[in-house]
Amino acid sequence: MEDYEAILNAIMAHLNPNDIPKDETIPVGISNRHIHLSQAAVDKLFGSDYQLTKLKDLSQPGQYACKECLTICGPRGVIEKVRILGPVRGETQVEILQSDTFKLGIKGALRLSGDLRNTPGLTLIGPNGSYEIQQGVIIAKRHIHMLPEEAERFGVTDGQIVSIDFEGERGGSLNNVVIRATANSGLECHIDTEEANALGVVPGTSIKIRK
Amino acid sequence: MEDYEAILNAIMAHLNPNDIPKDETIPVGISNRHIHLSQAAVDKLFGSDYQLTKLKDLSQPGQYACKECLTICGPRGVIEKVRILGPVRGETQVEILQSDTFKLGIKGALRLSGDLRNTPGLTLIGPNGSYEIQQGVIIAKRHIHMLPEEAERFGVTDGQIVSIDFEGERGGSLNNVVIRATANSGLECHIDTEEANALGVVPGTSIKIRK
Repeated sequence: MEDYEAILNAIMAHLNPNDIPKDETIPVGISNRHIHLSQAAVDKLFGSDYQLTKLKDLSQPGQYACKECLTICGPRGVIEKVRILGPVRGETQVEILQSDTFKLGIKGALRLSGDLRNTPGLTLIGPNGSYEIQQGVIIAKRHIHMLPEEAERFGVTDGQIVSIDFEGERGGSLNNVVIRATANSGLECHIDTEEANALGVVPGTSIKIRK
Repeated sequence: MEDYEAILNAIMAHLNPNDIPKDETIPVGISNRHIHLSQAAVDKLFGSDYQLTKLKDLSQPGQYACKECLTICGPRGVIEKVRILGPVRGETQVEILQSDTFKLGIKGALRLSGDLRNTPGLTLIGPNGSYEIQQGVIIAKRHIHMLPEEAERFGVTDGQIVSIDFEGERGGSLNNVVIRATANSGLECHIDTEEANALGVVPGTSIKIRK
């Protein structure tokens, strides 16, 4: 009995309750191609002072899918019915899939959202006209949204690069997943539909961070 | 000098020249959706005794891409300009991407080529009419073609499951890659365009087997 208590005490002495996450898993969100518009783009594409219509809320607080879709056009081809996400942003950003770069005939730029310098442009077509952007087309770098306090709990920092693993028939690993630890974040790992399809990831999947 | 020679002899005694592959890398081939037709399907879709037109040879000996394309139709949608690969086979087989299952409105079946039991069907549309298959639509399981003597050199056997790793900005790993060691094979690892795009794989990439 003494031995048992000694072992238990030795273990407890090395454990800090704050070091033990209640749940280490992170839900995965799968993004298809989509568009974030500036107000200037909304005005040109839909008419002056048009307000986008919320269809449903997304996992990131304040973000929502809109009823409205647009056609995107590159020098080689077009893609119809690309969903707009709200609310409006300072700069228009179009997130496409790697395969879309071939359909559209534009180069792919693998970037985090908002990092738009030296990215390609394209033309958006809406019910009220077209709107050409000189830059703003990206393929989203896979990333994990979390609050700063969640980053602390997971033992990671904003900007850190981690890997994630998937089980199953098409299982495998994705490296170079960027931690995005910011206030007002919903805990979620974002990959695109090509990444999800390649690894057999379905909605409802959760992952753990591998450092 | 004696020490040096002794070490060298000790090393050489454990080396068998046949155990050292000249090159351990395997080229990667990236497959888009495509169709293999039976002669009955060719007759119906293009007219009796029509001969498919070779466009270019593929890496697997005797296999070639054809000039002809078809439209494939499911209950929810169609995909146009799907390339036919020759020569004709005993049974029609349509290899699609996971994302195509949503466009077409059919379930995906992850299979090796030729394993068509309990797979979905669809309708093919050609210049001479349509041809419905009750089964034969698969998403190809990633695999590595090689000769039996190459399998021996790599230390793997037909049917063995291995993993492959990719470097780069979108690097990662794919598990459950099937070794297909058969006579008359060209050494090549086959993944589809979604797998290639998710891992940032471009034509000319080579991989090594990880057991």
